[in-house]
Amino acid sequence: MARIVMKFGGTSVSNTDRIKNVARLVKAEVDLGNEVAVVVSAMSGTTDQLAAWSNAVAQLQRSEEYDIVVSSGEQITVGLLALALQNLGLKARSWLAWQIPIYTDCVHGNARIISIDSSIILKEIVQGQIAVVAGFQGIGPNKRITTLGRGGSDTSAVALAASLQADRCDIYTDVEGVYTTDPHLIAKARKIDFIAYEEMLELASHGAKVLHSRAVIMAALYALPVQVLSSLDKKPGTLIVKEGGLVEKQVVTSIAYSTNEAKVTLIGLTDCPGVAAAIFESLAKAAINVDMIVQNVSQNGDFTDLTFTVNSSNLNLACKMLNVLKKDLGYVDIISNAMVCKISVVGVGMRSQPGVAKIMFHTLAKCGINIQLITTSEIRISVLISSKYLDLALQALHTAYGLDTDG
Amino acid sequence: MARIVMKFGGTSVSNTDRIKNVARLVKAEVDLGNEVAVVVSAMSGTTDQLAAWSNAVAQLQRSEEYDIVVSSGEQITVGLLALALQNLGLKARSWLAWQIPIYTDCVHGNARIISIDSSIILKEIVQGQIAVVAGFQGIGPNKRITTLGRGGSDTSAVALAASLQADRCDIYTDVEGVYTTDPHLIAKARKIDFIAYEEMLELASHGAKVLHSRAVIMAALYALPVQVLSSLDKKPGTLIVKEGGLVEKQVVTSIAYSTNEAKVTLIGLTDCPGVAAAIFESLAKAAINVDMIVQNVSQNGDFTDLTFTVNSSNLNLACKMLNVLKKDLGYVDIISNAMVCKISVVGVGMRSQPGVAKIMFHTLAKCGINIQLITTSEIRISVLISSKYLDLALQALHTAYGLDTDG
Repeated sequence: MARIVMKFGGTSVSNTDRIKNVARLVKAEVDLGNEVAVVVSAMSGTTDQLAAWSNAVAQLQRSEEYDIVVSSGEQITVGLLALALQNLGLKARSWLAWQIPIYTDCVHGNARIISIDSSIILKEIVQGQIAVVAGFQGIGPNKRITTLGRGGSDTSAVALAASLQADRCDIYTDVEGVYTTDPHLIAKARKIDFIAYEEMLELASHGAKVLHSRAVIMAALYALPVQVLSSLDKKPGTLIVKEGGLVEKQVVTSIAYSTNEAKVTLIGLTDCPGVAAAIFESLAKAAINVDMIVQNVSQNGDFTDLTFTVNSSNLNLACKMLNVLKKDLGYVDIISNAMVCKISVVGVGMRSQPGVAKIMFHTLAKCGINIQLITTSEIRISVLISSKYLDLALQALHTAYGLDTDG
Repeated sequence: MARIVMKFGGTSVSNTDRIKNVARLVKAEVDLGNEVAVVVSAMSGTTDQLAAWSNAVAQLQRSEEYDIVVSSGEQITVGLLALALQNLGLKARSWLAWQIPIYTDCVHGNARIISIDSSIILKEIVQGQIAVVAGFQGIGPNKRITTLGRGGSDTSAVALAASLQADRCDIYTDVEGVYTTDPHLIAKARKIDFIAYEEMLELASHGAKVLHSRAVIMAALYALPVQVLSSLDKKPGTLIVKEGGLVEKQVVTSIAYSTNEAKVTLIGLTDCPGVAAAIFESLAKAAINVDMIVQNVSQNGDFTDLTFTVNSSNLNLACKMLNVLKKDLGYVDIISNAMVCKISVVGVGMRSQPGVAKIMFHTLAKCGINIQLITTSEIRISVLISSKYLDLALQALHTAYGLDTDG
């Protein structure tokens, strides 16, 4: 017997037939003799609709009231799933965050879980009741409902699993697991059987949408085995484990990409201390995240060029902020480009094996693809290239790192 | 300065433009210096959609989980209205039933309010914060969410107004108030300025959809003035008050009708004690409400005919239950007819003025309309007639009782 937390995303509960399908998947775990808690998202599209309504009545986002509205989507699905489970003759009940409770901080719209008091819910679970828990939501210090931000249901599931000391957290989704790269773009992409937390975190942080990065961090923290698998196919998925638990450490495990990138270059910037600080402080104040940053060596010691990337949705705002600073900073021009994408190769084997970067640069050069920016971590190399080369680059790198399927 | 509870139904909050309109109506009350609490229903259609989803996953209605699902509609509208009010620069916050709390019994899907602890909410209201309260919902003894049944938001509003010792409860709807009869059917129908609780209760119980009967009972109990008015027009509505407060007591104030009626006749029933009890006990067990009942005098002391009406949605079930009893009861035949409607004339003046029934019967006879059943209370006369005569009968009675507009 094991204690399992199962999490189902919006596409897995997008209509009543899919909810009945989820109920059957849960029943299968119960029939194996397992204790089960289920975390569900809202029906796909619901949260977008609720957010759109909020936007239509007021430009007061990420507030207490916004959270009241958007958290109702999960309230609907927990009730429906509990009903569907009862209809199969199982003992089940729904739990809203305030009923458990799942305590968070008070950052509405993007709250973080502080603690979960799982004593009451655990008592019911060990007596054979299936707990159906609303993902994405919590309760703040002022007893108001909070939400965890997009993808927050993954975090809810992992945090609940940690709190319940579960043996495993299964994240059900509409793909079969974590892939060597996006199978929608690259036909030869393979499902990965095992992946390390650190690798998953790098992938989630650099464009892979399969799992929320905060959930991966929490899983790593509690050394909780997390499985990503499909709610539509009955196949084993990808198990996320400690690096030490991997039998074979791939040099490159998977290739992620992100198309929401935009590049900004400030030309002829005065090269003196405090200039970069002024720029990035101004962007941070506007809540604009900066990702890759490269500064060229000064040509004559006085002027330099500074290039960085932001999310493409923030490009206009970033340029506006920089224009305000133009007088103080005294740069010559701003050049921006939203037709770029970032490709990241990730693998824990990079730590011990040199030459990974060389393969990347060589492969892209052979394809005639110019690299605009490069950043690295211990287990990741990311390059910024023109958007038009995305497919070509992914394909070439996937082959070059030996990730293609045999078939 | 007054303390006002304003209630808005589903059509008044059916989209974000209407919600903004409601915010403006609330602001107008606040600008008058009033303390305001607002009770809202779900967007029109939402509760039906949620109930349909529940039905699709399980035939387990009126349960804890059903209530979790259907109560989410009001959670959406309170958040949206609070946002819209904040957007107008007003202090406002939403309250879910469990946050106040509004305590109910544990009859899920049709719970009754036991008490409201308005101490916390009142503290905020007197400090100038607008309370936006979710109608239709409560919290049961087991800390699960309950719902009050259809039309329950009216009851929420009146109960909250009583608890807050409000000066008035304004029920905003899509009509201008209570009418002398349905203005959609009878062009000469007039809006009524004042009506007694007892009259409103008879109308609500016999087909008038403008206000829920449980809300009227509660308003009468606390002698709370209730106004029914339009959220779309800026006009005074109908004020529901104590009979003693009426300047002029109409013999007939208003004419209600109900088309959801079905008539059942048991022919050749053994006329001995216990037979009627067996029949109505069996129907009660199946949760079928019986309305009008007439038993003919036995023709020879042994056999009789029994006629009664049920809601037309229950007709098939009622016939099924009666067929089961056929052997024991020994009746000859069942005749049923769903093509009937009930017309009720209501007025507190009936108590003191004779001849009201005579006008009714005379008027219908002149139109050639056969009366199938008659029931009365001290201030109401109801007749069951063929559905095809509904418009004709309403028109004739409206004129006969002097209710037509001059114009």
